[in-house]
Amino acid sequence: MRQELYDLAVLGCGPAGLSAAVNATIRNKKVVVVGAEVCSPPLHKAQKINNYLGMPDVSGGELLDRFVQHARQIDIEILNSKATSISELNGLFSILLGDEIITTRSIVIATGIPYRATLPREDYFLGRGLGYCATCDGPIYRGKDVIIVAHSSEAEDEANFMAEICRRVYYLPLYKNPGKLHHAVQMVDSRPKDIMGDEFVVGLELKDGSILNAEGVFVLGGETAPDRLIPGLEIKDNHIVVNRQQETNLPGVYAAGDCTGPPYQVAKSVGEGQVAGLNASRYASRQSG
Amino acid sequence: MRQELYDLAVLGCGPAGLSAAVNATIRNKKVVVVGAEVCSPPLHKAQKINNYLGMPDVSGGELLDRFVQHARQIDIEILNSKATSISELNGLFSILLGDEIITTRSIVIATGIPYRATLPREDYFLGRGLGYCATCDGPIYRGKDVIIVAHSSEAEDEANFMAEICRRVYYLPLYKNPGKLHHAVQMVDSRPKDIMGDEFVVGLELKDGSILNAEGVFVLGGETAPDRLIPGLEIKDNHIVVNRQQETNLPGVYAAGDCTGPPYQVAKSVGEGQVAGLNASRYASRQSG
Repeated sequence: MRQELYDLAVLGCGPAGLSAAVNATIRNKKVVVVGAEVCSPPLHKAQKINNYLGMPDVSGGELLDRFVQHARQIDIEILNSKATSISELNGLFSILLGDEIITTRSIVIATGIPYRATLPREDYFLGRGLGYCATCDGPIYRGKDVIIVAHSSEAEDEANFMAEICRRVYYLPLYKNPGKLHHAVQMVDSRPKDIMGDEFVVGLELKDGSILNAEGVFVLGGETAPDRLIPGLEIKDNHIVVNRQQETNLPGVYAAGDCTGPPYQVAKSVGEGQVAGLNASRYASRQSG
Repeated sequence: MRQELYDLAVLGCGPAGLSAAVNATIRNKKVVVVGAEVCSPPLHKAQKINNYLGMPDVSGGELLDRFVQHARQIDIEILNSKATSISELNGLFSILLGDEIITTRSIVIATGIPYRATLPREDYFLGRGLGYCATCDGPIYRGKDVIIVAHSSEAEDEANFMAEICRRVYYLPLYKNPGKLHHAVQMVDSRPKDIMGDEFVVGLELKDGSILNAEGVFVLGGETAPDRLIPGLEIKDNHIVVNRQQETNLPGVYAAGDCTGPPYQVAKSVGEGQVAGLNASRYASRQSG
């Protein structure tokens, strides 16, 4: 367990997250950023950005590099990890990152374009055999068959873990070149079509027409929907509800960038990140004061 | 009179205004920016800005230069002028700039940190002998005595105009090195303290204890308060009220940057300018469609 108490934990290392972190760091706050290996994949892939004022005609990758460089230049700590759940006690937030926990006075959520369900009826089956964290729910499936639908290589560790406790683990990678998996993990070369079951998951229908029987389906390695991460967070039209101060409905929790709604644009994200970072800093000061 | 019909007129050439203009131009809108010679004096003077993501450690002047350069690179028209009044007819806005009028489908107000009254009880005396536009109200004061409190050299033309129609024109410059004025203008080397009068202006008390008698007082060459510029614009706590889409209470009128409230920060202004510019573009498209 990390022993430091942070003033601010930023979830996401895209334009909004880094802007929040830079602004809070300049206010002498103790800041940590939790982000994926590639910060903001949509920006990373953008061929040309010509509307971030002051830096005309750059590629998305170049802009992102400069953003990360700005953050590193002032020694901002960036953890290559992902928050899997968040709880609050006495005004302090505990954030679970895999098998590590960090504790913070305030949070800025900047996780990008919101998660969309991969499979039809995902919401219906959530908690009825469908889950987003295999290591969390794993023990329930001891000795049983499970299916892992994997958005990225981040899912591989969880698949290997499940292979040790489940009877069968089917692995459907939705990305290219999956790495080496536990010998008991059965790789499936097809795309998922629909979850099968009435009240509970009984299997998965694939696009090639075949069927996999299983009691559990995990969708892993994608973005976690923020309201699953923090219970009670107000969401509307799939986006986190914020006011002009970037405050969510939960005290100490701010949000910025694409996760708060369109336009999905760099300057909008950087601006909102700044406001969120400054207001979270002020909140943390009041809490520690 | 300028014959072009603009899609968007941006008032102010600081970070918010230029960001709005860049984003609307990229959307193929016909854009004009109306701004002072120095765009954003507060930024221009800032020694160091270290929280505009991607451009660490620049001076305010350097950042502003890069912003203006970005706008000029995509041929944005910047008029060195100031809006003195705005009227709306059939969904088109007419903006008076000195003796020139421009017509536009939408407006982004980005005039910076809001105007604060120069003199005590300015609001009370507005329309009771106090005004912000000498050329507008001039005829009322024909043959009478007026006082001009001048924030910048922009007031000099108005003073010369008043000298031709008034009996006496007292001129109190609040800036350094005033230029050559009409021989009938009487320069006063003191600071204003208080407006004198019960129901109407009868004169001005100066900080050196002396008194100037006059029926009119004009405060000129400063920033015009946006709600004086556009009647009916909703203001709260001295700032223009906007929602997260940067819409004001008036259809087709958007606002961005410091004029919408704190924090007074570059990234916040650039982000809001982007959102305002994109939404104004969409509004103009609907109007022209």
